[in-house]
Amino acid sequence: MPVIDPKTVPVKTGSIYPEPYASMMAGRSSLRLGDAGGLTQFGVNLVTLEPGALSSLRHWHLHEDEFVMVTEGACTLVLDAGETVMHPGDCAAFPAGNPDGHHFINHTDQVARFLVVGTKAPREVATYSDVDLRVEIEAGKARFTYKDGTDWEGPR
Amino acid sequence: MPVIDPKTVPVKTGSIYPEPYASMMAGRSSLRLGDAGGLTQFGVNLVTLEPGALSSLRHWHLHEDEFVMVTEGACTLVLDAGETVMHPGDCAAFPAGNPDGHHFINHTDQVARFLVVGTKAPREVATYSDVDLRVEIEAGKARFTYKDGTDWEGPR
Repeated sequence: MPVIDPKTVPVKTGSIYPEPYASMMAGRSSLRLGDAGGLTQFGVNLVTLEPGALSSLRHWHLHEDEFVMVTEGACTLVLDAGETVMHPGDCAAFPAGNPDGHHFINHTDQVARFLVVGTKAPREVATYSDVDLRVEIEAGKARFTYKDGTDWEGPR
Repeated sequence: MPVIDPKTVPVKTGSIYPEPYASMMAGRSSLRLGDAGGLTQFGVNLVTLEPGALSSLRHWHLHEDEFVMVTEGACTLVLDAGETVMHPGDCAAFPAGNPDGHHFINHTDQVARFLVVGTKAPREVATYSDVDLRVEIEAGKARFTYKDGTDWEGPR
């Protein structure tokens, strides 16, 4: 049945980031709606941000387009140029290869949610704007490196 | 700026269907949010259905995944098995190649809206469930045929 019952979709918490970054994602969870519906070409996640939570480290994608629609509460979008508060129905698009990193912060005392869509490229590189970190993802396997491409061994 | 101001996005009306099918799409319009945000890998449209309007002829995609979230009002999803009413926040996924055709009807007297995401495949074939019609789309050009692959020349 194509209709997705969110109650049957497992809540995903945690992060693939190495520490100390994984712990910074506390209060973020998501429902993998696209996977639940059998989609393989793009991911669709409904992300919940508890008060104070971050959606991710601020980042940009080399090969994957990304799209967000806020569905509940207020999500603050952070870019190179600063912050913009987004409300339900507000949308933002992040074309692949644009190096203006983004993430969302819930600066309120209420839960916030957004729907995020991202292409599933065979090989992807995400670069984190505010720390010396990038990740290469291929065949479901993630390799974290510094921005110079050497293996990540801890914050520097 | 990644944030998309819907007020700046042109409202698209009309249909590429041949008649008499194009006229059946009266009351449907959409905002091409993904295009407005510079995305090329998938389309994201916010579709408005006036009372009585259809989202499309009932169809399925051969190569393109599709995902829908209702954002306003009530949208009735029609599949081979019958009708399901969907409300804001309800989602549905239509994996490429699944021949159970779908469309949405606004059976209410209020406007209904949904967000729809679909991959932009280099070549696509959509097949219409309830009429003898299919379309091949390649390089932005659409060729309508009967289901046997011959050129469409009118309803039969």
